[in-house]
Amino acid sequence: MRNVYLHNVDVDVAKELLFRVPLTPKPETIPVIEALDRITAEAVFAARSSPDYNAAAMDGIAAIAARTVGAEPTRPVVLRAGTDFVPIDTGDVIAPPYDCVIMVEDIVEHPDGSASIREAAAPWQHVRPVGEDIVAHEMIVGARHKIRPVDIGALLAGGITEIAVYRKPVVGILPTGTEIVEPGNPLEPGQIVESNSRVFEALCTAYGAQALRHPPLPDDYETLRDTLKTLVSRCDVVVVNAGSSAGRDDYTARLFAELGEVFVHGIATRPGKPTVLGAIDGVPVVGAPGYPVAAYFVFETFVADLIARLLGAPRQERPRVEAVAARRITSSLKHLEFVPVKLGQVGGKRIATPINRGSGVTMSLVRADGLLIIDKNSEGCDAGETMTVELLRDIGQIERTAVSIGSHDLIMDLIADEMQSRGDHFLSSSHVGSMGGLMALKRGEAHIAPIHLLDETSGIYNLAFLRRYLPEEPIALVKGVGRVQGLIVPPGNPKALATIADIASKSASFVNRQRGAGTRLLFDYELKRIGLSPDRITGYEREMTTHMAVAAAVRSGSADCGLGVASAAQALGLAFVPVGNEDYDFAIPARYFDMPAVQAFLAVLRSPDFARRVEALGGYSLEHTGETIDVRPEA
Amino acid sequence: MRNVYLHNVDVDVAKELLFRVPLTPKPETIPVIEALDRITAEAVFAARSSPDYNAAAMDGIAAIAARTVGAEPTRPVVLRAGTDFVPIDTGDVIAPPYDCVIMVEDIVEHPDGSASIREAAAPWQHVRPVGEDIVAHEMIVGARHKIRPVDIGALLAGGITEIAVYRKPVVGILPTGTEIVEPGNPLEPGQIVESNSRVFEALCTAYGAQALRHPPLPDDYETLRDTLKTLVSRCDVVVVNAGSSAGRDDYTARLFAELGEVFVHGIATRPGKPTVLGAIDGVPVVGAPGYPVAAYFVFETFVADLIARLLGAPRQERPRVEAVAARRITSSLKHLEFVPVKLGQVGGKRIATPINRGSGVTMSLVRADGLLIIDKNSEGCDAGETMTVELLRDIGQIERTAVSIGSHDLIMDLIADEMQSRGDHFLSSSHVGSMGGLMALKRGEAHIAPIHLLDETSGIYNLAFLRRYLPEEPIALVKGVGRVQGLIVPPGNPKALATIADIASKSASFVNRQRGAGTRLLFDYELKRIGLSPDRITGYEREMTTHMAVAAAVRSGSADCGLGVASAAQALGLAFVPVGNEDYDFAIPARYFDMPAVQAFLAVLRSPDFARRVEALGGYSLEHTGETIDVRPEA
Repeated sequence: MRNVYLHNVDVDVAKELLFRVPLTPKPETIPVIEALDRITAEAVFAARSSPDYNAAAMDGIAAIAARTVGAEPTRPVVLRAGTDFVPIDTGDVIAPPYDCVIMVEDIVEHPDGSASIREAAAPWQHVRPVGEDIVAHEMIVGARHKIRPVDIGALLAGGITEIAVYRKPVVGILPTGTEIVEPGNPLEPGQIVESNSRVFEALCTAYGAQALRHPPLPDDYETLRDTLKTLVSRCDVVVVNAGSSAGRDDYTARLFAELGEVFVHGIATRPGKPTVLGAIDGVPVVGAPGYPVAAYFVFETFVADLIARLLGAPRQERPRVEAVAARRITSSLKHLEFVPVKLGQVGGKRIATPINRGSGVTMSLVRADGLLIIDKNSEGCDAGETMTVELLRDIGQIERTAVSIGSHDLIMDLIADEMQSRGDHFLSSSHVGSMGGLMALKRGEAHIAPIHLLDETSGIYNLAFLRRYLPEEPIALVKGVGRVQGLIVPPGNPKALATIADIASKSASFVNRQRGAGTRLLFDYELKRIGLSPDRITGYEREMTTHMAVAAAVRSGSADCGLGVASAAQALGLAFVPVGNEDYDFAIPARYFDMPAVQAFLAVLRSPDFARRVEALGGYSLEHTGETIDVRPEA
Repeated sequence: MRNVYLHNVDVDVAKELLFRVPLTPKPETIPVIEALDRITAEAVFAARSSPDYNAAAMDGIAAIAARTVGAEPTRPVVLRAGTDFVPIDTGDVIAPPYDCVIMVEDIVEHPDGSASIREAAAPWQHVRPVGEDIVAHEMIVGARHKIRPVDIGALLAGGITEIAVYRKPVVGILPTGTEIVEPGNPLEPGQIVESNSRVFEALCTAYGAQALRHPPLPDDYETLRDTLKTLVSRCDVVVVNAGSSAGRDDYTARLFAELGEVFVHGIATRPGKPTVLGAIDGVPVVGAPGYPVAAYFVFETFVADLIARLLGAPRQERPRVEAVAARRITSSLKHLEFVPVKLGQVGGKRIATPINRGSGVTMSLVRADGLLIIDKNSEGCDAGETMTVELLRDIGQIERTAVSIGSHDLIMDLIADEMQSRGDHFLSSSHVGSMGGLMALKRGEAHIAPIHLLDETSGIYNLAFLRRYLPEEPIALVKGVGRVQGLIVPPGNPKALATIADIASKSASFVNRQRGAGTRLLFDYELKRIGLSPDRITGYEREMTTHMAVAAAVRSGSADCGLGVASAAQALGLAFVPVGNEDYDFAIPARYFDMPAVQAFLAVLRSPDFARRVEALGGYSLEHTGETIDVRPEA
């Protein structure tokens, strides 16, 4: 029924096995003017000198040094045009009898065409000698050198118009799976959009390879086998996407074994475990898992290295930095793990906040600033531990970023987008709930915490929580938006839910938010207020981390309702039953308030562009937006 | 006769004036799969959720959680196929009545098709909820975001197949000059190869713009004017190359003034001073100088920024590092200066060694690891001063580089090329003469000093100098090559020079090497030996810094002879009169000897590949190559 299960091979061992396949970069000759970013196959030596004549280095006159001897400020020497000198411009030939250049500033021209000078000229002064830039036969660039714009200039100047570079490796990409559909087509339930092959194509381009993508094929063994054979005959490397695990329709390992050889099935990394490595007819073949994040890692780990070998050039390494883990991260001893993180420079420390690690969550890579690396022989790291992070974004940008950690609202995306549009500053926004945001401020991991925390006693939002949890820190509480919380229900509200009490009385299933979320606190507050036990709510334990995820669960039919903001219901075309109004505000420690990135955040918050876009979302009030309350420690 | 002279405008002021021309990025819609490296014109929101159904996150069975209640290790629950469960693979739809997934490892299959479980399942366990990756209407990427491979995956998964990006700016490039010739054609004296426009094209590609290059035009005012008008009507920016100074045929400023407006003529930088900035019909126009290095800087300083503005995205900044200047560098208070430098990590310090600053020396950019920046209000820096350097090469590569400073020989290029071919290590080689090399070792600026220093007393090469100049440092003297020094003379040796004495007696003109060069010391030694005063040598004061430059001077006819190695004469097809043999060796302080990059250098030196290539050059003996003499401080 199913294949034998995977091995758990270390990445280094897996690479060693895969790289035993001999790969030879193949040279081809191309015009220099088309050689940008290509890798030289051999050293290139100048075919001629540049300049290849003695040239004037200044505007002025070409003269004969011997005839200038004796010129002094008080005893000028007069030179006759045409015999003693000729006027020249920079770059003109200096030919016998002339052997020096006198600058235009140092001559006095006379009406009869003669010129006088007040200083003797040295032979060859202001003359660019032959070969000053490049001497014929000199090496311009070495072998395995990546051609840059300046190299093109030097090569052409050295008389080279064609060079030998390594041919772009051809990477065959075979997307497989009965459930995958080309982008742009309608999806049936159970079908998913084929996107990994397009990511692979783009990675090939970025790494200097040529992608040869086959259209997606269903899980049919014979068709896959024939197509794979053809691809192998036309490519330097082939990647088969999905079918690399041990499920019933996972044919990749069997295909590799039938047509060639399997070196490894299953590697000790997360993500990327169900990977197949082998070779067919001397061509390395890689079976990558279907989950997008895992597929990306497998390409980066193995295929990018194969491309580099075929290009004859080492890969450009991603810069690595040290950063302090904002939270404890657990990892199994069984695998090397890459954890996508947001990075932020907060109060002199570089903080790494982990993002969802699910290997299906493409957005974790889109949002990540870097990948925190957990060695195989480590069980993870504690909060506050210094770890190594491979950068996915420019460190300069990260340093110009305001770090927000706290509650989620759609307006955070809008602010981030507006800040980026305006130029120099960025917003990094992590969603851990309001209480999580306050804790992040307390630990010095964020500049801004978006919160909506209802004080049960006073009925006032947010202020009491700042006094309680950050009693020693002067804080600015900047008013964000007023928003309506309510029950998100399917269109037409089929269960006719009108209140929170109805969830229990009408046996509706519910989808909750995670602990520490303001919305969860609001729900608990309301349950308590009406004296309803959480046991009575079906689905109370089912937790989502954003309003949109709650709305999506309702939309999919897996829950009858959830508590969230009106904009989330509206975005997914769902109905909405208001439960109450709340204040979604920003807590900003006074010591970060004047940071340029924080000021850029506030400028957007107070801008008409932002107001316009928020009104389009619906369900918000902007009455107090941007107002600031100083919260000072009690004396 | 000539134009009025240039102004000397600060770069910042010049930019401000140029950037007053209003530039608006123009959006266009393109397929996502072609959007790599393009800049989004607006935020992109998901059109659908991914997954857009509840999906199995594991291989196993889809079950109904309520029917698993009560299962325990000692009391398994039996589930019936088709009613209580269905087998599923990762990614399959979980549809009613099923609401959870039980992993294949946790079930026991029975011959009748039923399965037993030993633990109750929680509702929605191992189910990827709708929108786990992307929820419809969620922002995938913001505006002014450069599309990466992972973004393409997320966009497609979110149901987006086309996006609005900013159109690639069209940069018109107009090479001008009666003296310039397209590459690949024979050159008359005074003609030079047109290469700057090709460097500009490549820079456009690198910065995401589209180049529109016009073929080179001669310096004819009317033709230039008509062509410039046409280019301006078709482009977003136009660069006119050369003619930007104030010579007789320099028309750029006049053209800009006639067709539009000149903002700046002459900027306070070196290189790049003779630059014209203006606008014609709302299109920014840049007149760049003809010298390749200056042209490059002007493109980088102004045109690249214009492209960034038209793309709506900030430029990727080059990383900057601190480095210690190896030598005093002087600079005028009148301009901001960029000095190409070699960088090396030597004994814990990062050392910047300046390269020839001539704005005609393209090779200075090809060879540079970075650009040392000297502010306008500074007269330069002292040796040992910490300065800022903009990196042109990966810092990781620089750290894997053996730094050689000392005498020049063609074999240094071969070793660098071989090291690069073999992969992980690099050679950075600066030519300052043998004595300069010893001084660099003494100051801790180099790992290796190539030297050929003749001890007048003993007649032995190199050893005595190490004992004299580095008495306290244990050094390995690695034997390099034996080489023949001699007079480089034109083919056929027209002046029939047979000895150094002949230079004076036959009135031949000479071209010398710089002070501190071993070849200069050898020449002085020979003059002394035969009792000839340097006054008797015409051209004794004319200094070149490499053997090849000496050969080139002889080749051009500007000198009748020079002292140098046979390989330089052979490379340029010149005749050679041997004067003596010498040892070209490598002094390597013991503390650097085990460095991987130094070991890689020695491995090449001792390799058959190297021997083969050196023999092809001619004039070398490899008898002792690679042998090592330990030079220890006297006890």
